[in-house]
Amino acid sequence: MPKIVDHDERRAHIITAITKIIARDGFDSVTMRGIANEAGYAHGAIARYFPNKQSLLTAAFLHVFNESHERALACAESSRGLESLRRVIKELLPYQDATNNDARVVLAFWDRAAQDPELEALHHQNLLERRALYRSLLEQAEEDDELSNALDIEEAVNRVTVHAAGWQMVGLFVPESATKESLDASVEALIAGLRQQHHIN
Amino acid sequence: MPKIVDHDERRAHIITAITKIIARDGFDSVTMRGIANEAGYAHGAIARYFPNKQSLLTAAFLHVFNESHERALACAESSRGLESLRRVIKELLPYQDATNNDARVVLAFWDRAAQDPELEALHHQNLLERRALYRSLLEQAEEDDELSNALDIEEAVNRVTVHAAGWQMVGLFVPESATKESLDASVEALIAGLRQQHHIN
Repeated sequence: MPKIVDHDERRAHIITAITKIIARDGFDSVTMRGIANEAGYAHGAIARYFPNKQSLLTAAFLHVFNESHERALACAESSRGLESLRRVIKELLPYQDATNNDARVVLAFWDRAAQDPELEALHHQNLLERRALYRSLLEQAEEDDELSNALDIEEAVNRVTVHAAGWQMVGLFVPESATKESLDASVEALIAGLRQQHHIN
Repeated sequence: MPKIVDHDERRAHIITAITKIIARDGFDSVTMRGIANEAGYAHGAIARYFPNKQSLLTAAFLHVFNESHERALACAESSRGLESLRRVIKELLPYQDATNNDARVVLAFWDRAAQDPELEALHHQNLLERRALYRSLLEQAEEDDELSNALDIEEAVNRVTVHAAGWQMVGLFVPESATKESLDASVEALIAGLRQQHHIN
């Protein structure tokens, strides 16, 4: 009887191996042979799922994005409004080395997405999803009267997006500035800037 | 008599051609032949200045960085404190399409710098220079009593660095959010967050 192959499981296994290689050695160093070795499959078994390097990078990026997005959604559901937003923002910042390795995959993807219309559209879509999450939490905060009256929601969505993207770069290239204390302070300053200032007269 | 070659001029000419190609087609598409065609030189004339692709990317990135850094320094000298900082921040944001093309070169470099210790050290050094500029303007602002008392200068340097890096990414991938109005609002929110709030009692 032929061995039954769980294609989803095998695909997931290959993607984990790819993500590890890109994070460790860079996308330019990825070879079909290297992935086959890392994942423990024959070369042909990889090519069956991913016909070329671009499909590998796309899969690795979607893996990193979807995992972080699921974690962010879970954080969002744990509370409401600005408290939820704080938790989501913290979840997406490079607090750990492991997250920094993810940042290498993200940067490799940003670079290629800047040159390739198909990848650019994919990344645009991901960013719209993430922005929709920020927006829904900011709207909750507005309902709960937590936000500064002068605040424009779209401008606030930009602040949060820019903050998350900027720390990916700083975490990688100025790691001495991305301590837990700095990241915490940055999140608190961002949240404080959104919050209604209650004047005591 | 042999023709006298101005090496600095020729080097600068080649770098301009490279930057244009990377911004337009991506680093992966750069070939020695393509640069020779674009710059109007023989292949050998290029190889004399840049022996390999990495030296090309490094030169293009330093060109983009140094040009923007000189513009930033000029802005810094036009005023003092927070007003200087506002001008510097605006100079470095992706207000124009031309700057967006620079962002493609910057992203290509970030990606490679994330994998290569020599490029990483170079980028780290560039970021330290830029942070030193932000810090000096924040210290001026502190002398002039413009800053919020609770503000930590290093935390403020992080805010400005993260803001600049984050907008490079958003400007490229969510260009519909990077309008002149959004960028202006973002800068004003950043400056307002640093500023001393004068309470009228």
